[in-house]
Amino acid sequence: MAQPTSLELAARHSRVRQTLDTLSLDTLVVSDASNIRYLSNHAGSSGILVLTNDAVHLLVDFRYREAVQMLQQSPHACPGMVVRDVPASYDEALLDCLGEIGVSTVGFEAAHVPVAKHDWWLRTSAARTMAVTWRATERVVEQARVVKDKAEVATIREAATRLGPVADAVFRAVRAGQRERAVAAVLESAMRDAGYERLAFDTIVASGPHAALPHYRAGDRILKAGDLVVLDFGGVLDGYCCDLTRTVSIGPPSPEARRLYTAVYDAHQAAIAAIRPGVESTAVDAAARSVLESRGLGEAFGHGTGHGLGLNVHEEPRITRPRSDVPAVPLVPGMVFTVEPGAYLAGFGGVRIEDDVLVTETGCEVLTSVPRELIAL
Amino acid sequence: MAQPTSLELAARHSRVRQTLDTLSLDTLVVSDASNIRYLSNHAGSSGILVLTNDAVHLLVDFRYREAVQMLQQSPHACPGMVVRDVPASYDEALLDCLGEIGVSTVGFEAAHVPVAKHDWWLRTSAARTMAVTWRATERVVEQARVVKDKAEVATIREAATRLGPVADAVFRAVRAGQRERAVAAVLESAMRDAGYERLAFDTIVASGPHAALPHYRAGDRILKAGDLVVLDFGGVLDGYCCDLTRTVSIGPPSPEARRLYTAVYDAHQAAIAAIRPGVESTAVDAAARSVLESRGLGEAFGHGTGHGLGLNVHEEPRITRPRSDVPAVPLVPGMVFTVEPGAYLAGFGGVRIEDDVLVTETGCEVLTSVPRELIAL
Repeated sequence: MAQPTSLELAARHSRVRQTLDTLSLDTLVVSDASNIRYLSNHAGSSGILVLTNDAVHLLVDFRYREAVQMLQQSPHACPGMVVRDVPASYDEALLDCLGEIGVSTVGFEAAHVPVAKHDWWLRTSAARTMAVTWRATERVVEQARVVKDKAEVATIREAATRLGPVADAVFRAVRAGQRERAVAAVLESAMRDAGYERLAFDTIVASGPHAALPHYRAGDRILKAGDLVVLDFGGVLDGYCCDLTRTVSIGPPSPEARRLYTAVYDAHQAAIAAIRPGVESTAVDAAARSVLESRGLGEAFGHGTGHGLGLNVHEEPRITRPRSDVPAVPLVPGMVFTVEPGAYLAGFGGVRIEDDVLVTETGCEVLTSVPRELIAL
Repeated sequence: MAQPTSLELAARHSRVRQTLDTLSLDTLVVSDASNIRYLSNHAGSSGILVLTNDAVHLLVDFRYREAVQMLQQSPHACPGMVVRDVPASYDEALLDCLGEIGVSTVGFEAAHVPVAKHDWWLRTSAARTMAVTWRATERVVEQARVVKDKAEVATIREAATRLGPVADAVFRAVRAGQRERAVAAVLESAMRDAGYERLAFDTIVASGPHAALPHYRAGDRILKAGDLVVLDFGGVLDGYCCDLTRTVSIGPPSPEARRLYTAVYDAHQAAIAAIRPGVESTAVDAAARSVLESRGLGEAFGHGTGHGLGLNVHEEPRITRPRSDVPAVPLVPGMVFTVEPGAYLAGFGGVRIEDDVLVTETGCEVLTSVPRELIAL
């Protein structure tokens, strides 16, 4: 809980440099803001980082100049960092930097660089007769990020722990007669009190039929007896995200609501029980999904079972069905992700139960600690 | 103030179709979430929209199915819309859709499509022997968005007006002895009370030397007499952003603080006075910049004078110095942007004054109405 130290950053650099070596690249241009932060502790929304064998060039504009100077005088300074000023265009500054340091084979992040920008780099570096070979890379830094290091685990653990009092506050506040927005306000004020620097995503308070819309936010509907209410919220602490969902009942739940809740609860338990090193991410999804299918709720569970948590609120590993566009990965100690099965019945409502887990040597540790049984408020 | 109607959407479609016609494209694949919302009223974070001559295909997954059905039964339904379900991969679903409707020359948004996705589209459409020619486009929908239509102006005007009571609330609350974070909490709670659905960006409360960091947020520093405090905040109403900055003094300002404030105030006035149809965006920046330069503060003003506001908090037109990567545009009635000169002195502090303006037939209308003189609290 605190920024990584210079030593921890150095270890990250060396992991990424090993990958570059394997790919026969002498340089990586890092465009993604979370990847930049991971490698440098620079948390700005703009910046380009150029990682070479012996240096980390950080290109930033005027707005970040002083913040970066302060960072570099702290115990969290980025080792080997050369700060380069961007007077106007980041793309011009990038080519200037590559020209000066005399690189040859340059990897770029193909998942983060838009076609238009890439075209400009190619065209302009050719016009300047720079001897640069551009090579598309994917997941170079993301692959390093998927297994959290000690500093990251400590931060996420603290972020997740602080959701406990937030949940308590909202359980005390929710009652029939309130608008969804008012409940969201209680949640967000409790998150601020808990010390999060910002929300990890727009808070969801979905009541009654709205609970059947998995990405509904919070509106003017007034909570009434018999509603299921899906509460999905999370904060960011020192850059790291946590994410929790509980579904509560306003007054005693109907038998149908209880049946739905029990099915999702059992799916959640099954997923947690399936987590251990070596198990494929898709097997965790299958564990949850087969419970819901066995209750006739396969169609009602339209999303994946979970997603990685870290500097991004959605990152690797993805805990989904086997999909052509999502790599299935074997679980490794140090991975952190959500477990969040749900079931949604149009017109009736829905249930989702979500916790954050850390893969350990023998299974997993649930980082969020909030009662998981159906609460009637 | 409310979503655009089906008729208004139809007018947007026809403007964009005219551009496609000029570019000899029969189809546009729209990836950017704001562009999708502009054309369809679908406000989800995922989705792909395929605009053809006679239809609007919206590809969405499970999570948005019910919300889109509700939209299509409302007066804000998207005309000509065909909703297509995405069972797993958006990219697979896109190629399926293009194959079925039998298009030939397909434009895509080169500024929003990453290289990796584009490569997959090319490779896979070739492997499927689809007769598709992919063509990079830029700013097709953005160009339509830069001049706001009636519904948009009404929404932004309402969003900007509501910042008045928010500013009042914070002026009443700010005083020596408070932490920056506590001031941010007051601002954010007032924004929620004002009915904004979310913050347009992370609230900035930068006091004393922090005020010299243009993108500082809000931390643990305690406000003390003699501080300048930069307060930069904005909300989103029905999808549209507003953005305001005021700088206040804790107790009586020093002569240096007053000099800095007056310079920025005069630069702000000069920029506002320069705005009218036909004037280049760069001329508005020059008007503000020349005032600051004449006071020896040219170096202290490191950012541009403003940015467009709409579905994004930063969009066209950019009000900057002439730059190779930012097109200078002549102002047109219906454009909405911020005017926000600033001056920052490392170690001392800074001043920024920001309002939102609408270009009119004869000049501009300032949409935000909050006192602009230096307030000592």
